Amino acid sequence: MSFNEFPSRLLENAVNEFASLPGIGRKTAFRLVMNLLRRDSGDVKKFGESIIRLHEEIHYCKVCNNISDTEICNICNDERRDRSVICVVENIQDVMAIENTRQFNGLYHVLGGIISPIDGIGPADLKIDSLEEKVKAGGLREIIFALSTTMEGDTTNYYLYKRLNKFTISLTTLARGVAVGDELEYTDEITLGRAINNRNPYQQI
Amino acid sequence: MSFNEFPSRLLENAVNEFASLPGIGRKTAFRLVMNLLRRDSGDVKKFGESIIRLHEEIHYCKVCNNISDTEICNICNDERRDRSVICVVENIQDVMAIENTRQFNGLYHVLGGIISPIDGIGPADLKIDSLEEKVKAGGLREIIFALSTTMEGDTTNYYLYKRLNKFTISLTTLARGVAVGDELEYTDEITLGRAINNRNPYQQI
Repeated sequence: MSFNEFPSRLLENAVNEFASLPGIGRKTAFRLVMNLLRRDSGDVKKFGESIIRLHEEIHYCKVCNNISDTEICNICNDERRDRSVICVVENIQDVMAIENTRQFNGLYHVLGGIISPIDGIGPADLKIDSLEEKVKAGGLREIIFALSTTMEGDTTNYYLYKRLNKFTISLTTLARGVAVGDELEYTDEITLGRAINNRNPYQQI
Repeated sequence: MSFNEFPSRLLENAVNEFASLPGIGRKTAFRLVMNLLRRDSGDVKKFGESIIRLHEEIHYCKVCNNISDTEICNICNDERRDRSVICVVENIQDVMAIENTRQFNGLYHVLGGIISPIDGIGPADLKIDSLEEKVKAGGLREIIFALSTTMEGDTTNYYLYKRLNKFTISLTTLARGVAVGDELEYTDEITLGRAINNRNPYQQI
């Protein structure tokens, strides 16, 4: 669509903004804006303000870099959590994913990415120094590397291991194995091989 | 996702707003908001403001009900357009669709919907009175009914015809026939039947 086809500049601006989002084409953007136009004015204002406030008021936790409404996030502030274990993750989506499992009661450390030479992301671009500071400060028992099982994730794991293995602290990674619901026939051989090597005693569920 | 899983209320609000849009689920909404979070603050502010301004500053043309930045839209204001023909459409998307063809040089009249008893939309909910006023005011040569070829569109066409055929004005509808690119084998029989009845002299393209 060229500019001339829009009857209104305001409409066009809003469509352009929505179309700038990933996975939203111009047709979808237009459909979304038309939906907003049919709503109450107050409703739409709330929508716009929620976006503006998101950037103006949001904090990144000073301790773990997780997203937060306050300077220190709810997890770091929670006295009931185990402060001797830190789970290192790539981003806040991963914090949410692990929180959803309700299986982890320690703290997090959000790296803000993983080492990826192709994307020009090196160790200096990530929050690795502050992680080392935490280890140096003492009181930690274990660091869990919970990164993606990709080449970049493995590289980052290796780098973190090299940086942190001089400290007397246990460094662990997530278990690798056959995912729940996967059929063995279609499981790749590396995963299946690791699953055999890391087999566990049978447990009734 | 329940509330507890969001590390931030601001984030949750923004995700909820995006998830309220048609065809956007919570996972997609979260992905869109994360994209906004990675952007510059000024960029995001512009996004939010474009939505707020959309509702606060947009006008509906006093003449044709098309969306507009001004009280009278660009089309109604354009002196070069043929003021003796009005094309009646359901909504502003249809205005844009017809404008894109560059085949029509008259004015429009946006009904704001079509008669649909199932959705509780009757003639009184549409801008039909103002259309009749325009016809009464004189100076018109033709009204084109450019509504969807659905039962609701046909019903609305019929109602408009009944309201307007007492005036000495030509009432026309869009030609119905086989769409460009359609294979005859898969064209429904009603369309094909009409296309045979309304056949045209052969023209070289």
